[in-house]
Amino acid sequence: MNGAESLIKTAIEAGIKVCFANPGTTEMPLVSALDSVPGIKPILCLHENVATGAADGYARMSGQPAMTLLHLGPGLSNGLTNLHNARRAHTPIINVIGEHASWHLEADPPLNAPLDQIAGSVSGFVRKSASAGEMSKDMADAIAASYDDGGQVATLIAPHDAQIEEAEAGASLSTAPNLTSVPDASVASVQAALSTGKTAILLSGKALSEEGLRLAGKIAQATGADLICETFYAVMERGGDLPKPIKLPYFPDEADALLQGYDKVISVGAEPPVAFFGYPDGRSRLTTSEQDVVLAVPGQDVVDALARLADQLGATKDTAMTGALPPMPPMLPMPPMPNGPLTAEAVCTVIANLQPKDCIIMDEGLTASAIYHEVSNFSPRFTQLQLTGGAIGMGPGCATGAAMACPDRQVINLQADGSAAYSVQAWWTQARENLDVITILLSNRSYEILNIELARAGVDAPGPAATALASLDEPALDWVSIAKGFGVSGEAVVTAEDFAIALEGALLRRGAGKGPYLIEIQMP
Amino acid sequence: MNGAESLIKTAIEAGIKVCFANPGTTEMPLVSALDSVPGIKPILCLHENVATGAADGYARMSGQPAMTLLHLGPGLSNGLTNLHNARRAHTPIINVIGEHASWHLEADPPLNAPLDQIAGSVSGFVRKSASAGEMSKDMADAIAASYDDGGQVATLIAPHDAQIEEAEAGASLSTAPNLTSVPDASVASVQAALSTGKTAILLSGKALSEEGLRLAGKIAQATGADLICETFYAVMERGGDLPKPIKLPYFPDEADALLQGYDKVISVGAEPPVAFFGYPDGRSRLTTSEQDVVLAVPGQDVVDALARLADQLGATKDTAMTGALPPMPPMLPMPPMPNGPLTAEAVCTVIANLQPKDCIIMDEGLTASAIYHEVSNFSPRFTQLQLTGGAIGMGPGCATGAAMACPDRQVINLQADGSAAYSVQAWWTQARENLDVITILLSNRSYEILNIELARAGVDAPGPAATALASLDEPALDWVSIAKGFGVSGEAVVTAEDFAIALEGALLRRGAGKGPYLIEIQMP
Repeated sequence: MNGAESLIKTAIEAGIKVCFANPGTTEMPLVSALDSVPGIKPILCLHENVATGAADGYARMSGQPAMTLLHLGPGLSNGLTNLHNARRAHTPIINVIGEHASWHLEADPPLNAPLDQIAGSVSGFVRKSASAGEMSKDMADAIAASYDDGGQVATLIAPHDAQIEEAEAGASLSTAPNLTSVPDASVASVQAALSTGKTAILLSGKALSEEGLRLAGKIAQATGADLICETFYAVMERGGDLPKPIKLPYFPDEADALLQGYDKVISVGAEPPVAFFGYPDGRSRLTTSEQDVVLAVPGQDVVDALARLADQLGATKDTAMTGALPPMPPMLPMPPMPNGPLTAEAVCTVIANLQPKDCIIMDEGLTASAIYHEVSNFSPRFTQLQLTGGAIGMGPGCATGAAMACPDRQVINLQADGSAAYSVQAWWTQARENLDVITILLSNRSYEILNIELARAGVDAPGPAATALASLDEPALDWVSIAKGFGVSGEAVVTAEDFAIALEGALLRRGAGKGPYLIEIQMP
Repeated sequence: MNGAESLIKTAIEAGIKVCFANPGTTEMPLVSALDSVPGIKPILCLHENVATGAADGYARMSGQPAMTLLHLGPGLSNGLTNLHNARRAHTPIINVIGEHASWHLEADPPLNAPLDQIAGSVSGFVRKSASAGEMSKDMADAIAASYDDGGQVATLIAPHDAQIEEAEAGASLSTAPNLTSVPDASVASVQAALSTGKTAILLSGKALSEEGLRLAGKIAQATGADLICETFYAVMERGGDLPKPIKLPYFPDEADALLQGYDKVISVGAEPPVAFFGYPDGRSRLTTSEQDVVLAVPGQDVVDALARLADQLGATKDTAMTGALPPMPPMLPMPPMPNGPLTAEAVCTVIANLQPKDCIIMDEGLTASAIYHEVSNFSPRFTQLQLTGGAIGMGPGCATGAAMACPDRQVINLQADGSAAYSVQAWWTQARENLDVITILLSNRSYEILNIELARAGVDAPGPAATALASLDEPALDWVSIAKGFGVSGEAVVTAEDFAIALEGALLRRGAGKGPYLIEIQMP
């Protein structure tokens, strides 16, 4: 057994079953080890940012750490932005990166790059194996580290010479989340806050699991607190009879309008909320220090803290929760099926009406799907994933990984066009693995957020430079052709009626084993 | 005038005319400044690695520094691998990156990332503007720094608050390459080496300019030395009556077979050559310290050093050089037009026969175009660009930038399929700007280098993992559809005869102003 084989064997013993990969010459012993020590299926991705996005989606949906295999500093660099998103989502990922033979580095060959420095920009754990004999233990440590801080990115650098030298596997493994318990005093102080005025409970991270939401619903019902969820969540269980928190608005002024009426805002699952960007009004934090109460942050046992709080409050255990209590705005019921042009609202309403029970919605629709959260409150039970770190181009890869993790569930990727253009390569992996992903490509032919930002900055008549840089027209992208090129069938629609027919047809593919599909939504 | 406008005004005064861009919210004042201080044309790229690749191609061909505008840490991260290639090519590039308002950073908003650290992995100069008033000088310093070390990447970080505060332009500019002169003693020691046995002159970097090559040819003729060029050059003038150096082979054993017969190897334009990868034979350097003589490295005036050496040698000034002297292998004449299946040799031979005078060949054909250098020795005068840093996916972006720099020249991009899949978004910019780029897509449906590396490592029968990770089949990529989706017409060919017809037709497009085209070469 060589070092590469000891690393792979350790990964298998830790329960890792797939590896999202784009290897090169320095990873060849690891590639060979995937054959000589069978147990991990390699999934080839045509760009490393698809591999890291897929790893993120896989880990979010499986609850297990995901593994990537990348080529040197450049391979890691290409995958960096979806690792940034994964870092913000607290997703456990282990990157294994081949490195030049240790004796070759002093020659500074063309592909040499400062791997430690690049990896450190997104990783909570970075280590380079010093020898073949350390590789099994290093992989075990990387896997254990991926569980820290509520989930993080761990990067293990594997020099080529260490991969091919003799080694043994057998490092002891730690494969359970390493969560600390919230102190009793914190639970008590949250309990006190809940009885001292008008209170909102802001749910983030693990608080948006089914168990977390049901506990939060009981707490809200027992105390009259309102439930709010974070703006960009990694994974949220939704629909059916689950509690339906209001979503914290994206723009600071709108968030402020929602939050300013509360005496206390109890953060559960994250630190108190901050503005996505700092506008000239100078507002960084969306709550005041007087409002802030924190129950639990990543790395703490968020669901346990909610359970203990519910116990302390004597919250009843078996009342169904279907909505937050007044004075939150009343929920819209499921809106009826629309007709005519495919506005953002029409698109989201068709999806909310037709999406099947237990589907997974990977939502990178951005401005075009902003209303989806609200209109889908009464859809059948489903899981929604979102872009967490603002680095666009996550959706297609993340949907790919989610489908790998959950082969029995339909994945629907609501995908903005500007963001999709970053990661079209993911469709090839969806085709190769015959994954049940329907991409709903929201083509408004612009980076619409830039137009909104220009208007907010008071630029009423953008000049030619600003216009050119926000427009995706001239030429318009032909998404059906791009998808076909990467092996995925599709069609384009321009009315809500035709979209409904297309989506119903696409949903039949899963039963027939027909794999991925793309519907291009030509918005007005 | 605000800080953003002072930065743009300074760039215009330095001669910058285009900016390859994908901006976001934190760059909006810079985008507005491109309108309010006109003079720089923004070129929208659908992925930052296209922007950085295009900047590299633009600067290589224009001889001027190129500018990019990127969004925060993630935008820079996406563009990192083509900046790695640019760093290895000694290309002068100035990245301007928006950053969160300085007062907002302590909130660690979702898009926050360690910009300094990420930029430092590829940049020789990194600075964050401390205030609006510094922004003009900071830009001037970044431009000056891009000329250092023979050309390098400079990154200027522009906080949003500094972009919008009041400022003035007017920093003094330094816009000339900052080269040091090679000492007389070095020239004399090279002259001595040329008379002490069998000698090769290894030309790299600026030595591959027309002037450098003609001087090297005269030196070779006067001394009997052989001319060799580096394996992966940034820019090389080729064809016509220029000297025709042998190319240093990629694999160390083949390079060794060429180099071991020389008593001295004189490196001109780079440090002595190193192996691309370190194989188990333990060879890092391709020459011995006894062989090594260095005339000039990047940052030194390479062409001036060659001129002084030629003068010292009394090399005649007006002898045409059409080849290296014995005992180098004799050059093949232009091979005749082939028939039948599109092997790598057939493809390269068709191109070498048909390529027009003064065209620019952007060669990222890798294994499929390895033979192109040899068969094109007798093509009419042209310029060839290559992948310099080994980070694949450079070709489409680099060809885009080269076409922007040289609107009167035909650009032909020899493009390997696995590498093309990284950067298909570049075709949209080619279509939008109506650029004269013909992409010759070499579809062998594999990462062929991995199969070669596996065979070299003794893996005769790769297992299912290794097979899956080296194959681009299942499904085969349909390149004509992908190009069509991004707005570029094309066709697929399977024989050399049909390829010749397709290429002749595509070459007629330039005169007709019809813009980019793609020819998919379906290799056997």
